[in-house]
Amino acid sequence: MKEFFKVVNYQQARMYIKDYIPPARQEVVPLALAYDRTLASEIASPEPLPAFSRSTVDGYAINARESFGCSESLPAFFTLAGEVLMGQAAELAIEPGQCVWIPTGGMLPRGADAVVMIEYTEKMGEDTVLVYRPVAGWENVMQVGEDIAVSQVLYKPGKRLRAQDIGMLASLGFENVPVHQPYRVGIISSGDEVVPVGQKPLTGQVRDVNSWCLATAVRQSGNLPRTYPIVQDDCHKLKMAIEQALSENDLLIMSGGSSVGVKDVTIDVLLASPEARLLFHGIAVKPGKPSLGVALGEQLVVGLPGHPVSALMVFHVLLMPLLAQKEFNFVTALCSENIASQPGRDDFVPVSLKPEGASWMAQPIFGKSGLMSILARADAFIHIPYEQQGIKKGEMVKANLF
Amino acid sequence: MKEFFKVVNYQQARMYIKDYIPPARQEVVPLALAYDRTLASEIASPEPLPAFSRSTVDGYAINARESFGCSESLPAFFTLAGEVLMGQAAELAIEPGQCVWIPTGGMLPRGADAVVMIEYTEKMGEDTVLVYRPVAGWENVMQVGEDIAVSQVLYKPGKRLRAQDIGMLASLGFENVPVHQPYRVGIISSGDEVVPVGQKPLTGQVRDVNSWCLATAVRQSGNLPRTYPIVQDDCHKLKMAIEQALSENDLLIMSGGSSVGVKDVTIDVLLASPEARLLFHGIAVKPGKPSLGVALGEQLVVGLPGHPVSALMVFHVLLMPLLAQKEFNFVTALCSENIASQPGRDDFVPVSLKPEGASWMAQPIFGKSGLMSILARADAFIHIPYEQQGIKKGEMVKANLF
Repeated sequence: MKEFFKVVNYQQARMYIKDYIPPARQEVVPLALAYDRTLASEIASPEPLPAFSRSTVDGYAINARESFGCSESLPAFFTLAGEVLMGQAAELAIEPGQCVWIPTGGMLPRGADAVVMIEYTEKMGEDTVLVYRPVAGWENVMQVGEDIAVSQVLYKPGKRLRAQDIGMLASLGFENVPVHQPYRVGIISSGDEVVPVGQKPLTGQVRDVNSWCLATAVRQSGNLPRTYPIVQDDCHKLKMAIEQALSENDLLIMSGGSSVGVKDVTIDVLLASPEARLLFHGIAVKPGKPSLGVALGEQLVVGLPGHPVSALMVFHVLLMPLLAQKEFNFVTALCSENIASQPGRDDFVPVSLKPEGASWMAQPIFGKSGLMSILARADAFIHIPYEQQGIKKGEMVKANLF
Repeated sequence: MKEFFKVVNYQQARMYIKDYIPPARQEVVPLALAYDRTLASEIASPEPLPAFSRSTVDGYAINARESFGCSESLPAFFTLAGEVLMGQAAELAIEPGQCVWIPTGGMLPRGADAVVMIEYTEKMGEDTVLVYRPVAGWENVMQVGEDIAVSQVLYKPGKRLRAQDIGMLASLGFENVPVHQPYRVGIISSGDEVVPVGQKPLTGQVRDVNSWCLATAVRQSGNLPRTYPIVQDDCHKLKMAIEQALSENDLLIMSGGSSVGVKDVTIDVLLASPEARLLFHGIAVKPGKPSLGVALGEQLVVGLPGHPVSALMVFHVLLMPLLAQKEFNFVTALCSENIASQPGRDDFVPVSLKPEGASWMAQPIFGKSGLMSILARADAFIHIPYEQQGIKKGEMVKANLF
């Protein structure tokens, strides 16, 4: 019987893999296509925001000093010298004793350093305005660059762009954005028993789950999956498929055949290449032990277990953090029951999540390895590190979202 | 001065709006396009999983009874009657005293009801197998339908499909999936001061943020945004733009012009239509009070504030929950400082999030209304209900992700 012959823990596996994730290439995309993409360079503001001092209320622009001491019973009097129009430069300059009508967002005229809200004013006749409350200098005004200064760094490389970031980039005039090119990730399912989804399985056969599940997970990570036809457990066919997939992608994920059974030929095929370097065979995790990392020259091949739950779990633990820049990938949750774990390996326990007040309740999903139904019910997984002996009911845990 | 004339709280606003979100239409898409789409109908399993009883280990299929009582010192003897091949129906049937080699995933042959792991066996000569440990009936076997029974309901309508759900649907042979058609959401920014992102703003002008921010938020919600050219504060132009957008979309979001300033003509234009029904004007929230809901016949027009922070916040509070089926849209976080709030209105406070052990630390972002930089820094928002007087430092809060 074959054996796992280079078992590592999952941090080591991740470290080995990391070296073979190629540096991200950059491409420039129009702003309309930048949502959910990852910034490739730092973004600094090319201009100040606001670009002109503007009012934050509807009211009258004045020189603040001239309102000092006024009150309900003793208003200050101003002469209305005109009106600031939205979207236009304020051509007016106010003189002592004057005020100018200004709408929210309007440009502050020269000579003014504050705006009195309309609520605290009264208009008398055509051109006199009474002010019943003093304003401080720059009150109700947003000054040039107060929001964002010129050259201020707004985003670091690696930021995944959300709705408000797209809005922010629009406000600064970015019509194009430098983002990371997605990695091209080849995906090969293998196994004599595996048939495509469109084919009715004969007795003894099963439909291909992993190509679909992993391709979607790759898309979720922001990268470009490419699936290949299912390969039988045949050394020559596997070799050809691997060569083709590597020539067309940045890295390759295989599923099935990475264990130690008679038919698990993936490792033999991979290691037969003169430029192969075995990174690991076997990871001290549950589920997902029969995983495999091989470098073929500069390119990475990761072999995932055939069991869909294990394959997806190992993808999330090993590859997702390296391929995706996701910030909010976990929630804190209360564990609904005791979970035992075996020391000496890292356990990843699938859980379902239910809202529980301001928090979440995580319910571990137990069941035989290889149950598909676990996948459908799992919202997240809990990591029990190898030095830890299980989790107690009621404990706060980190639930990593699928 | 104009006034808000139908101020409601935000639950009321949401309720009013809900009635005008049209029922979701259904479409059928290929599985490859179903990721992140929302199921339109219940999915029940058309077949059992597994479809045949299969081994979960590499080993020998036997009749469990025949292993009872065996031990390290007193092995049970079996005659090797053949081999189950992966992907093929097990044609063999075992007779008393026989065993059959079976790989993980292989189909259990007739006459067998358990599998002994290879680790607990030894092969003697060509056709004798010694078993050193007894197995129970159905041990190391997954029986027909044990994972998923025929007609078992797997998903309810409204489920947003993730990687593992796509895998699950593949395993059951779904090549096509019934999903909700996305809503077509028109977006119009208005304001004399607003210029398109590609245009250099003159003094007094600002670039359009809301079209970009809201269109992206609509995409994030899983729906189809359509933006229109910026409209000036001109009743006729607004009327034409609204008519066009409503004829081409299911609902319409406008930004700017929903407040009570002289130039806020949106409401006048909307209410001038004979089939208009005012749902609300003004919501008792901060930020975002100057929001507007109008039904034009069967169609909904929501007017959002011009300030990008307010517009996005109101979108998230009112529209996102109705348009999107997102399950994990909040994390629990520790509040990093006291937050004051005013009773009588619902406050939505933008926060940044930092990991803090197994949890998150939420840091409120304070600043003048209308600051763009708040958007870039905000990861989430905290809701302080109108009856609550602020939040204390160290309190656990629900941080709703943007």
